[in-house]
Amino acid sequence: MEINNRDRAVFEAGIKLGALYHQFVGTPINENTVDGLERIIEESIGVQPFVRSVSVSIDREMVGRKQNPKFKYCELEGRMLHVSLQVLYKNIIATVELAYDEEQDYPLMSIKMIGEM
Amino acid sequence: MEINNRDRAVFEAGIKLGALYHQFVGTPINENTVDGLERIIEESIGVQPFVRSVSVSIDREMVGRKQNPKFKYCELEGRMLHVSLQVLYKNIIATVELAYDEEQDYPLMSIKMIGEM
Amino acid sequence: MEINNRDRAVFEAGIKLGALYHQFVGTPINENTVDGLERIIEESIGVQPFVRSVSVSIDREMVGRKQNPKFKYCELEGRMLHVSLQVLYKNIIATVELAYDEEQDYPLMSIKMIGEM
Amino acid sequence: MEINNRDRAVFEAGIKLGALYHQFVGTPINENTVDGLERIIEESIGVQPFVRSVSVSIDREMVGRKQNPKFKYCELEGRMLHVSLQVLYKNIIATVELAYDEEQDYPLMSIKMIGEM
Repeated sequence: MEINNRDRAVFEAGIKLGALYHQFVGTPINENTVDGLERIIEESIGVQPFVRSVSVSIDREMVGRKQNPKFKYCELEGRMLHVSLQVLYKNIIATVELAYDEEQDYPLMSIKMIGEM
Repeated sequence: MEINNRDRAVFEAGIKLGALYHQFVGTPINENTVDGLERIIEESIGVQPFVRSVSVSIDREMVGRKQNPKFKYCELEGRMLHVSLQVLYKNIIATVELAYDEEQDYPLMSIKMIGEM
Repeated sequence: MEINNRDRAVFEAGIKLGALYHQFVGTPINENTVDGLERIIEESIGVQPFVRSVSVSIDREMVGRKQNPKFKYCELEGRMLHVSLQVLYKNIIATVELAYDEEQDYPLMSIKMIGEM
Repeated sequence: MEINNRDRAVFEAGIKLGALYHQFVGTPINENTVDGLERIIEESIGVQPFVRSVSVSIDREMVGRKQNPKFKYCELEGRMLHVSLQVLYKNIIATVELAYDEEQDYPLMSIKMIGEM
């Protein structure tokens, strides 16, 4: 099958989610640094090719719960992340998501929409 | 547009390449540990969902050239990596690649083939 | 205070533990790939300056428990790691450890011994 | 030899430098996101135990030079980082540094000062 722009848009979107996950998981955080980390993850994704928009939010409730009581911080985990990302490749927009799936207890990446501009 | 198995296969393949890149880039290596690192990158990708096969090779010549003369090691860089990966999602096989593009001086990820089983 | 070889040995040992932790946490694993990952973490630490010996073991019981039941893998977490490391700087040997402290629910790094050769 | 507060201060300082290096190297950046990344690295180190102060600067000239001409970004490398860090353990302050050593072409971590409060 011939590879087309739709394939490429979806492929690029997958790359970005995989990359951000494994770049930033493990970062030390607490409730005061969540805002800054969200912004820098967005920025670091936003500089990469074909990214049209990206929005990152970190589950503050989970951060609060996971913070070590003595040391007052924890590490960013995949299941704390909610990411919504749009890739534009030529005329194709792929919208994808990373979201914690409670039922499967898994940080799930999925395609939400594919559209033409 | 309706999301189909082809989209999902290509998306999963992108996730895996982005993930391995940002997980392993930065790992200290020298010429003696290249073999072991290739195998463990393959294994760590292989345990993830929908991976049919994966082959990783690290550019030994580049490792040799980048090794610090005094300390005799360097760090794994994206441009040292050559990865060929097949994802199987339902009946769709997506074959993708990470390879150093010399002309653009860039570790390029691309879709090589999409086929039906 | 004058900086001496003892300071440098202990400092180098700290660097190595911090490095391995943040390099490898997040790596996808399951019970079949634990052995290989232990060896490659040891190798990647062993190529760095001043490392005299390193031994890594990953808590298989915890890996088994954390594996996603559907996808059959999990990610390496700091609390799965047990690392014993010796740095030799000039005539000083520093022995340090990373071990899960259950009481504090924390992957604790500590100095175990400092000796002269 | 008995382990003392000075050993622990220097050890903790080493941990923090090793950690930040391997957590953040590989992050996609360009000239516009350098400021934000410097701040978040500082914040992520600052939440960890015993950190008294931390200052991170990224070599903008090197970022500009390494940016891919087509894609307008590069990845954070160890040699772009200049970090100055103070750890306070009980009454001991250890001041350490990560700085690019041009002569050895190596991102060098070193102890700059050890003092008593």
